[in-house]
Amino acid sequence: MGEFDLIARYFTPAHYSPDVLLGVGDDAAVLDVPAGHRLVAAVDTVVEGVHFPVGTAAEHIGYRALAVNLSDIAAMGATPRWFTLSLSMPQADAAWLQAFSQGLLKLASWFDVQLVGGDTVKGPLSISVQILGVVEQDGWLTRSGAKPGDQVFVSGLPGEAAGGLRLVQQPSLRRDEASTAQLLKRFYQPSPRVELGKALRKVASACMDVSDGLLTDLRKLCRSSQCGARLQLEQLPASSALLNTFDIATTEQLILNGGDDYELLFTVPHTRLLELQQLMGTGVRCTPIGEVIAGDGVHCQRHGVSVNLPDTGFDHFADTSS
Amino acid sequence: MGEFDLIARYFTPAHYSPDVLLGVGDDAAVLDVPAGHRLVAAVDTVVEGVHFPVGTAAEHIGYRALAVNLSDIAAMGATPRWFTLSLSMPQADAAWLQAFSQGLLKLASWFDVQLVGGDTVKGPLSISVQILGVVEQDGWLTRSGAKPGDQVFVSGLPGEAAGGLRLVQQPSLRRDEASTAQLLKRFYQPSPRVELGKALRKVASACMDVSDGLLTDLRKLCRSSQCGARLQLEQLPASSALLNTFDIATTEQLILNGGDDYELLFTVPHTRLLELQQLMGTGVRCTPIGEVIAGDGVHCQRHGVSVNLPDTGFDHFADTSS
Repeated sequence: MGEFDLIARYFTPAHYSPDVLLGVGDDAAVLDVPAGHRLVAAVDTVVEGVHFPVGTAAEHIGYRALAVNLSDIAAMGATPRWFTLSLSMPQADAAWLQAFSQGLLKLASWFDVQLVGGDTVKGPLSISVQILGVVEQDGWLTRSGAKPGDQVFVSGLPGEAAGGLRLVQQPSLRRDEASTAQLLKRFYQPSPRVELGKALRKVASACMDVSDGLLTDLRKLCRSSQCGARLQLEQLPASSALLNTFDIATTEQLILNGGDDYELLFTVPHTRLLELQQLMGTGVRCTPIGEVIAGDGVHCQRHGVSVNLPDTGFDHFADTSS
Repeated sequence: MGEFDLIARYFTPAHYSPDVLLGVGDDAAVLDVPAGHRLVAAVDTVVEGVHFPVGTAAEHIGYRALAVNLSDIAAMGATPRWFTLSLSMPQADAAWLQAFSQGLLKLASWFDVQLVGGDTVKGPLSISVQILGVVEQDGWLTRSGAKPGDQVFVSGLPGEAAGGLRLVQQPSLRRDEASTAQLLKRFYQPSPRVELGKALRKVASACMDVSDGLLTDLRKLCRSSQCGARLQLEQLPASSALLNTFDIATTEQLILNGGDDYELLFTVPHTRLLELQQLMGTGVRCTPIGEVIAGDGVHCQRHGVSVNLPDTGFDHFADTSS
């Protein structure tokens, strides 16, 4: 089995949707972006030992590699359509590839996205996915539209994924079975908030996904929007799975600085809050956690009292600053 | 200097073309595919020690990482427009990044393609580029359209890049300065045949780029087109730089099996040969090297006599067959 067969054997979908005019197997794919739509493109790479622990099940790796990319498309309010895959691995192991592609293609099928190309190279385990989506003309979300007075929201229960990772690294921390299962699932199989992102296009002034930690990512949103934010710590949604497993201080630390959540962080003008409430009737929970203010930086308060918190979000090259 | 600044600092273009509606710095880029056009997408990864020798100058690495992707778009007869970059490197070295981005962005500027997103991760040196192009509706080239009777052509002087690589690996093989310079240039700075690919849309029945070796790649084109080919070895274009450096047998071996050329391999029906000649008045040399036949496989002849040649094209996982 050679390189040229790997993508075809393990990753070619059974059938393509009509907007894939030419799929895997040629020099490039040919795709049909519908009239009146824009193309949305992003790339995210996950590396063994950095983004997932050595020994992670191949199926989870495949799932996560695509999930983190779907999340980027969700943050734009766009619809994911296609992706390419660059897979670096030490050897071509049939069982591993089978499980990896199963995890990847299961999620692809849930979100109706098609693998349209890829390459495989020999090297350390590392997966790069390039995701392509479409969005109605002028209808996308950015990080840069927040205005002072807007309310800040986060979807889901941030911190659970980081809690799950901690339980992978230190199994002795595990408490009850249900909480452990919930936290591990949130780490291994995050839910890209694609439907929420699309719904938010009409109400949110700014949006991004939480991949490096709530505090770090809120700082980025503020920087892009040239404003600041006041975060109300007592309003942070606390997961019972986290509280069942960790003490309150650790739980708060995980919520604020844990990465890998792939929840959406977004801002909504006061005039749109009613519309947001109507959207929230179904689907994923969204919690107001603070407000956008003039100035810069993220200022934390607990019951009205200022609190200074260090920024410990994830940064690959933070140690190599020059 | 953190991860979040790297792409912005070293890779953000001075200005975007109007079809980039949102560039580097948000969760994804937003791009405008012109009306009446299709999107063309491909990905190619280059890894240190596999696709380029350890110690290759950063500027060359940046250039080649993009060039091999532009070549995929050229093979489709499409126009490259945008790309994303996933950069894995052991540490964030400012001088290295500066030189890498210079090589990358120089080529990007020549071909008017825009970097619209990317990520950086800590790991072994490996560069994944995802290229996006556009092509007029129904006007793209594939590997699968060759028909018996079509003539087979190759652009440029295949083998020179592989000759250059050999001179990098064994400097004692170097002969005259001009030949050495020519061969090294072809390895480090291949010329993506974008203009040729676009011109071929009107005349070629099938097209692909030569990345793994002429013989291997011609076999792939034949397989995709469900036909065979007869290759006339004496018609292969022999570079004087190769002949000045290597003996005739090695030169032929490099032409047939050397990878990294990024020339175009294409087939033209007899009824279109006159049009091809008119195209060839300017630009890159194209040489007829054989013809498409019914059946399968590539059959080599030298002055009318059959020759059996082993297929030694590049395949990452050829050793791990199960």
